[in-house]
Amino acid sequence: MNNVERLTILVWNEGVHEALNEPAHIGDMYPDGIHGAIAAGLRSHLPDADISTAVLATDDEHGLDEEVLAETDVLLWWGHKAHAEVSDAVVERIHRHVLGGMGLIVLHSGHFSKIFTKLLGTSCSLAWRNDGQRELVWTVKPSHPIAEGVDSPIVIPEQEMYGELFDIPDPDDLIFISSFAGGEVFRSGVTFTRGKGRIFYFSPGDQEYPVYHHPQIQRVLANGVRWAAQPGLDRAAPEVSHRPRGWYETPADLPAHRQSPPIMDEAVLR
Amino acid sequence: MNNVERLTILVWNEGVHEALNEPAHIGDMYPDGIHGAIAAGLRSHLPDADISTAVLATDDEHGLDEEVLAETDVLLWWGHKAHAEVSDAVVERIHRHVLGGMGLIVLHSGHFSKIFTKLLGTSCSLAWRNDGQRELVWTVKPSHPIAEGVDSPIVIPEQEMYGELFDIPDPDDLIFISSFAGGEVFRSGVTFTRGKGRIFYFSPGDQEYPVYHHPQIQRVLANGVRWAAQPGLDRAAPEVSHRPRGWYETPADLPAHRQSPPIMDEAVLR
Amino acid sequence: MNNVERLTILVWNEGVHEALNEPAHIGDMYPDGIHGAIAAGLRSHLPDADISTAVLATDDEHGLDEEVLAETDVLLWWGHKAHAEVSDAVVERIHRHVLGGMGLIVLHSGHFSKIFTKLLGTSCSLAWRNDGQRELVWTVKPSHPIAEGVDSPIVIPEQEMYGELFDIPDPDDLIFISSFAGGEVFRSGVTFTRGKGRIFYFSPGDQEYPVYHHPQIQRVLANGVRWAAQPGLDRAAPEVSHRPRGWYETPADLPAHRQSPPIMDEAVLR
Amino acid sequence: MNNVERLTILVWNEGVHEALNEPAHIGDMYPDGIHGAIAAGLRSHLPDADISTAVLATDDEHGLDEEVLAETDVLLWWGHKAHAEVSDAVVERIHRHVLGGMGLIVLHSGHFSKIFTKLLGTSCSLAWRNDGQRELVWTVKPSHPIAEGVDSPIVIPEQEMYGELFDIPDPDDLIFISSFAGGEVFRSGVTFTRGKGRIFYFSPGDQEYPVYHHPQIQRVLANGVRWAAQPGLDRAAPEVSHRPRGWYETPADLPAHRQSPPIMDEAVLR
Repeated sequence: MNNVERLTILVWNEGVHEALNEPAHIGDMYPDGIHGAIAAGLRSHLPDADISTAVLATDDEHGLDEEVLAETDVLLWWGHKAHAEVSDAVVERIHRHVLGGMGLIVLHSGHFSKIFTKLLGTSCSLAWRNDGQRELVWTVKPSHPIAEGVDSPIVIPEQEMYGELFDIPDPDDLIFISSFAGGEVFRSGVTFTRGKGRIFYFSPGDQEYPVYHHPQIQRVLANGVRWAAQPGLDRAAPEVSHRPRGWYETPADLPAHRQSPPIMDEAVLR
Repeated sequence: MNNVERLTILVWNEGVHEALNEPAHIGDMYPDGIHGAIAAGLRSHLPDADISTAVLATDDEHGLDEEVLAETDVLLWWGHKAHAEVSDAVVERIHRHVLGGMGLIVLHSGHFSKIFTKLLGTSCSLAWRNDGQRELVWTVKPSHPIAEGVDSPIVIPEQEMYGELFDIPDPDDLIFISSFAGGEVFRSGVTFTRGKGRIFYFSPGDQEYPVYHHPQIQRVLANGVRWAAQPGLDRAAPEVSHRPRGWYETPADLPAHRQSPPIMDEAVLR
Repeated sequence: MNNVERLTILVWNEGVHEALNEPAHIGDMYPDGIHGAIAAGLRSHLPDADISTAVLATDDEHGLDEEVLAETDVLLWWGHKAHAEVSDAVVERIHRHVLGGMGLIVLHSGHFSKIFTKLLGTSCSLAWRNDGQRELVWTVKPSHPIAEGVDSPIVIPEQEMYGELFDIPDPDDLIFISSFAGGEVFRSGVTFTRGKGRIFYFSPGDQEYPVYHHPQIQRVLANGVRWAAQPGLDRAAPEVSHRPRGWYETPADLPAHRQSPPIMDEAVLR
Repeated sequence: MNNVERLTILVWNEGVHEALNEPAHIGDMYPDGIHGAIAAGLRSHLPDADISTAVLATDDEHGLDEEVLAETDVLLWWGHKAHAEVSDAVVERIHRHVLGGMGLIVLHSGHFSKIFTKLLGTSCSLAWRNDGQRELVWTVKPSHPIAEGVDSPIVIPEQEMYGELFDIPDPDDLIFISSFAGGEVFRSGVTFTRGKGRIFYFSPGDQEYPVYHHPQIQRVLANGVRWAAQPGLDRAAPEVSHRPRGWYETPADLPAHRQSPPIMDEAVLR
């Protein structure tokens, strides 16, 4: 909306696979970490954005303190082995910011992250099999901004299989469906709204395969960031409860057929 | 809802493939026609229903006159070669009955039928390739009545491929997604509401393969009929326009804080 | 689905307003408690169902132990003053049963209950004003089973106002929208699916007004129970993760044109 | 998406009320016609857009020939008395362009226009009463781009009542719900996707009341235009049917840029 505003993007990664060299080729494949590769892809599409990274292993409060989140337009989340080590206080904070309007993009094994399951309310379980097979990502809602300029299908030569049943609520929009060489299908690109926040889940991107170097995957993520960002939004939480002025509380001198004031007391209305 | 009511089901088939013996084995595969096989499958699941069939080729008004439709709870539609030969007047009549609450189940190549495209408003185009390959039908909404007791996946050893992009509006519910041996995916089981009518589109079922003998396909169709039927419904069309009584037209002797009548003139309300 | 099966329904109420005589007329209005009035209404519509009640104040584990929930087809929930006193362990248990397929109907101020906010993932906040004004409940999806035989609008002469913004995810189906004499609107009847469970939220029904004696409100609740119940369902939780057999792992002796096995090993498939 | 691209917007109005001076004050209220007022409002929000108008009464092909539509990013439609006079050929042309990706904003009594009912497939009937009463337009999806910066509620002192049941398919997004002094409610701001086209229906705006001069209504329409426009989109119609290459049919000599495995192992693909 605000074309001159500079987006602030934060790519978060637990960073555990990188620290453990699991798999052994991860350092060669992603020398700057999974987060570094994601950030580099975003920078090529969003040259004017302010894109930074944070990891669980080395940052205070996981790099997600109040000040950071308050300035973040879109948070990308990659986690796998360390979901349980993300503190509940940080999860509550992220949750509050998403409801207030911060965009959230959850990637791959992040389906089991605390923040994703808290926002969705379901188990978020799925079927999986890691045989390094071909994934095809088909667009089924081509008018959605996240599908803009994206090939259908995207061909990922080798990837872990994620399959149905994916235990999520009905998404707002189903944008991508993947098939795998094993015959499985998966709703691999789905959006949700929670509070004022826009959420995009995108499944391609395992730690064993160089998926985040794929130009089409980078395009999807950049589209997702643009779609999820609401830079001009007031992040204040919705009021928990309030007693608004009733519309029947009409100045007595209004014509009877009106039943409502033509000019309202703005301060009372909010 | 009405457990004692006897459902009235009509299976409609253009009947052209059967008349032309295209393919040559259709008579051996479906000796009573595609409609006959569908009806037989429904009878095994719905022993108390009144299930009949009609075809384009031999019936007046295609077997779909006003009286027939008025008594039909659910209409199943199979067409392929003769979409253009279905008269516009009959399509208007079906359309009116669907909006009034008649259930409609559109099968396979019926995606291009006049009634389906008229109800959906889009081209309903799709990708296809007939190589007789394996289709897997995966359930993605297991709590939906149409998925009750259905295997996931249903395995169809040989079938025509229907693939995305399927140009339909977002469905009310996405129940099944298929994959094909060629790697394609398809939203193969979707529901829509139009007016008071419930619509189910289900893609498996080509004239070359014995899909309607498949026990799991028969179960899906029987579930679809149960879901789409509203036997107790008033079929009257919604009023095109009307001037309802306003709620502000309150008897003068009401307490001022009420702003509405406790007892309404029921006749005026509707 | 299973017409002979006897539904098991549990109406839960915190029971605090009744214990405190707040408001003073609650005992005259609901001599058997809010839960008693709801249960009586259900019995008039569902004579074959097994309908019982439980309250927070007097039952062990709030009357919601594992055995009770395992046999419950649909749980109705009324709470207001004591949300915080419902134990987290019981909430986890209900959550698991809903994901497994137990129906849940959340009433009025239950919008802030632990189980509802956990299932929905949002704040579930709303605007309110208790001036005892008229609520009109308009049907906007007349083909939904919950709207069957329901007047539009239902007229509730006196009720607390609940208004937008109602901070919930987009519902699966929006069935009712209410207006209030004060001019506010509210999505007063909405459904959600979480896991295999069907959830219905319905807002009319405050402790100050005799809303649960209203015949139309009783009909909506009975329709909701019928819709949410899945008596034949396997309640097992979805597997958290599993490695299904790949469809490419085909016995070598299959005919080449098949691309898939005609007979699958069922044990491996699940 | 394309920040430098200049949007091309066309405001269409049948222009009949203006020609007939019905109501008598329409010329004073809208000296440049309803279309002129809408265009002026858009210009104040979209200074870089190319905004023009067309009317049924004075233009060839209603001002909607192939060349005009091909260059239009978003078409706004106001009609009431002359729906039947819009030629079917023009409606087919608009329909094709919407499916191809042209945005469409349908206003007020345009709910009965040929193009809207054709795209939606339902009767689009509603309840109405023209008593010049207060309409309140409440936002129920604040994160939607069309709700950006919009007051909730928008207060329209005098307007025709449009009420439920509005016979439309479930919208993609429900953004606004209106209430009227008479107690009625209406889904007054809803979006649909048909093909690649984005459609926004917004009900405020009758010929008797100066609604299009209301700053908040102007903002909603400008937001709607921004949301519906897809300036970079390829407008080609989806292929009616096609036989795509199967992913198992990979010639070894495919160009590398095709993004598919250069050599597929057919056995693995199954």
